[in-house]
Amino acid sequence: MSKKPEKDSFVTEITPRSQDFSKWYLDVVRRAELADYSPVKGCMVIRPYGYAIWELIQQALDRRIKETGHVNAYFPLFIPESLLNKEAEHVEGFAPQVAYVTHGGGEELEEKLVVRPTSEAIIGTMYAKWVQSWRDLPLLINQWANVVRWEKVTRPFLRTTEFLWQEGHTAHETGEEAEAETLKILHMYKETLETEMAVPVVEGQKSESEKFAGALRTYSIEALMGDGRALQAGTSHNLGQNFAKAFDITFQARDKSVQYVWGTSWGMTTRLVGAAIMVHGDDSGLVLPPRIAPFQVVIVPIGRDNWRETVLPKALEIQRELQAAGIRVTLDEREERPGWKFAEWELRGVPLRVEIGPKDIEKSAVLVARRDTREKQSLPMQDLADQLRALLDQIQRNLLDRALAFRAAHTQRAATYDEFKQVMEGRPGFVIAPWCGSAECEAHIKTETQATIRNMPLDPPAASGRCIRCDNPAQHAEAWFAKSY
Amino acid sequence: MSKKPEKDSFVTEITPRSQDFSKWYLDVVRRAELADYSPVKGCMVIRPYGYAIWELIQQALDRRIKETGHVNAYFPLFIPESLLNKEAEHVEGFAPQVAYVTHGGGEELEEKLVVRPTSEAIIGTMYAKWVQSWRDLPLLINQWANVVRWEKVTRPFLRTTEFLWQEGHTAHETGEEAEAETLKILHMYKETLETEMAVPVVEGQKSESEKFAGALRTYSIEALMGDGRALQAGTSHNLGQNFAKAFDITFQARDKSVQYVWGTSWGMTTRLVGAAIMVHGDDSGLVLPPRIAPFQVVIVPIGRDNWRETVLPKALEIQRELQAAGIRVTLDEREERPGWKFAEWELRGVPLRVEIGPKDIEKSAVLVARRDTREKQSLPMQDLADQLRALLDQIQRNLLDRALAFRAAHTQRAATYDEFKQVMEGRPGFVIAPWCGSAECEAHIKTETQATIRNMPLDPPAASGRCIRCDNPAQHAEAWFAKSY
Repeated sequence: MSKKPEKDSFVTEITPRSQDFSKWYLDVVRRAELADYSPVKGCMVIRPYGYAIWELIQQALDRRIKETGHVNAYFPLFIPESLLNKEAEHVEGFAPQVAYVTHGGGEELEEKLVVRPTSEAIIGTMYAKWVQSWRDLPLLINQWANVVRWEKVTRPFLRTTEFLWQEGHTAHETGEEAEAETLKILHMYKETLETEMAVPVVEGQKSESEKFAGALRTYSIEALMGDGRALQAGTSHNLGQNFAKAFDITFQARDKSVQYVWGTSWGMTTRLVGAAIMVHGDDSGLVLPPRIAPFQVVIVPIGRDNWRETVLPKALEIQRELQAAGIRVTLDEREERPGWKFAEWELRGVPLRVEIGPKDIEKSAVLVARRDTREKQSLPMQDLADQLRALLDQIQRNLLDRALAFRAAHTQRAATYDEFKQVMEGRPGFVIAPWCGSAECEAHIKTETQATIRNMPLDPPAASGRCIRCDNPAQHAEAWFAKSY
Repeated sequence: MSKKPEKDSFVTEITPRSQDFSKWYLDVVRRAELADYSPVKGCMVIRPYGYAIWELIQQALDRRIKETGHVNAYFPLFIPESLLNKEAEHVEGFAPQVAYVTHGGGEELEEKLVVRPTSEAIIGTMYAKWVQSWRDLPLLINQWANVVRWEKVTRPFLRTTEFLWQEGHTAHETGEEAEAETLKILHMYKETLETEMAVPVVEGQKSESEKFAGALRTYSIEALMGDGRALQAGTSHNLGQNFAKAFDITFQARDKSVQYVWGTSWGMTTRLVGAAIMVHGDDSGLVLPPRIAPFQVVIVPIGRDNWRETVLPKALEIQRELQAAGIRVTLDEREERPGWKFAEWELRGVPLRVEIGPKDIEKSAVLVARRDTREKQSLPMQDLADQLRALLDQIQRNLLDRALAFRAAHTQRAATYDEFKQVMEGRPGFVIAPWCGSAECEAHIKTETQATIRNMPLDPPAASGRCIRCDNPAQHAEAWFAKSY
């Protein structure tokens, strides 16, 4: 049995964001108890506070997935190796990253099982059984699941060997329908991030070298983090008929001919929690958008030694009132100094703090502090829930506006490759530049500047200008470059 | 590309329940599209209709888990073999059933990873880090996850190599608190099954030979299926200090001494979907309790060829009205005969069918058919939502009453071992009998009759009588025996 010290004070210094973004990120994740390292290499533990944020994102996304006609299902964790091997590009893309189960139930398995890195192979196999006629289409299925991709360098939420996600897999009669689905989901993802997480994103198409292994076309949404790096926040793939051909997913068409279905797949992951941290956080820690905040309001009783008698009853009454109004609220009753509590809940990013002391009670008012602007104001207790709800809406909007302004200030066009390199060396962001379309140029730019093409506009302007690097005629007038996570 | 026939008519015969219960079960699972076999041995695919039932059970349970002060988190899928080995009984119980990951990222792993069969080992390791002082207790964490236990004989929902579940893991200051938590959860499980699923259960304690590997005491809830076999529907374990000692989970107590925490763990799984099928279903298929029915009401338009013009608009109006009232409703617009549709939705167990035809519209009424009693009645369209809600409540209650009556009719006391064997050979059920307490007698009874001790009452009557098999003085006056899944 090991002797243990009293737990460290929760609110210890975190590295200022302005000083070392990467260290700040890890400090926030750990000190706000969002996640912890586990004894399994590359895998994290999502702690309750971090998981509560994920649950709110999940609910918001699941609602939209269902509203757009999709249903949830569950497919096996394991994929027989032979199935993964059926689509050539797919296996080439994923094989280096997979984990293999070789023994089960005390015996060596006849065929190795892959722990799913994504589920096209297993779902495609089932779709081949389920789809017979055009009447069975479209098939619109989503799955919430864990997946495993072996990673060498990991970072909590952003890149872990195991992560949680949703993966949609659909099958359609025509290529046009599949393309429409792919874009519908992309727009749904964008709307979810902007509405729920106050994270603005750029929609666009990935280059050939960055597309999903086995897809015809990949679209992504890209968000700009507080350090000027981009984060791919979601992807939506038009699979064409590639998987249908590999897995023999055919149907009898309206004209009685036998056709391959057209497929899509799309996913967003627990990395979204990382995006929320890195877009909104500041030197004091997390700043959570109200819609994904596990607690939207924290009530901190203020007072002398006898606050449990004088202040607590009123604080409890307010808590009940806010709860009844549907506000997620917590009351910090612990025996600690108010200042310590303020710092703790700021670190945890709670949007509104309500302070209540004997003088406030006399005035029938409370002191309310906003996490985003740090403004404080006295508000009457009368209709407090309505007033706080209005403030929460303001905070949600303000965070989006702030992130939009930040992105605008960090998105520029480069006229020359020197200028391009200069931006990427300094305080980066998105750089819009023409690109010749060659994978070679793309690779050179990455080697020379660390920047990659995040995506290209959905409605691209006509090809014009010359490639930012090689000066050949540009095939894409606007490619969005950035360093990325 | 393979030629495909038109899909078979959905509503084909299912084996009558009364004729072959086991075949009936598999027919219902397949024909109602609850689950399908997968290309991975022992793993099933949960299809959208089956998954929707699971989601409703999950939401009902998750709400209760949170209301009782627990929070959700997520721990890694993989457990290093050395961690599983730390608790001797635990590894002995689970090692034969585990799957091993031996290769990842193109390399052989230095240490094999176990795919979690349950998470005590990984969670215990984290609790050792997180718990320092009595102020950190109780720690009340739940996880929704997939787990893997290699199975030789599998059956959809009831026993599969991979399954979905929730697993709660708590740590407490005292043994009394841990015991109280274990029982609180047991009661919560019972209440959830009875309220939400209309499945009555018997609470009790497991015998030593049936308890969880590594636990001090295991409690279970046991439900009686329509064929007279029992199904263990949930378990709650008092782990004592076993895992705390194995994983060094200590805390500084109020008296400054260093103590091991007291633990509990508890889980319910996707097998609950199987319980709902087997408790309520009949010869025509599923009968779903309204609270876990993906669709509580199906509207079937009746009419001649022009029903799309004459009947559909009113049917859509009713659908919207019911939706607005919070009833889960679907409208079957397909080009099929009404009789075909009736059979399909009966097979799928939808609690209420609303038929609407031109004559009903004239009378401003609809015809409503109950799935549980098959009674039909004409109801005025006025306040239809309220009337249907009342009917749904009646159905929910009726299903519970029916299941309670069935259990009462299939629970008896045996005076002699011959009588005991006779019951188990015929149409079985629960048999209450005295037991000497020896594992040997328990094992013999299992070999000779297939019956096992499901559990023993929480408040047992004083020891009295003689063991049903060996005639030695009984240590337990009432052990509940049954054949089981």
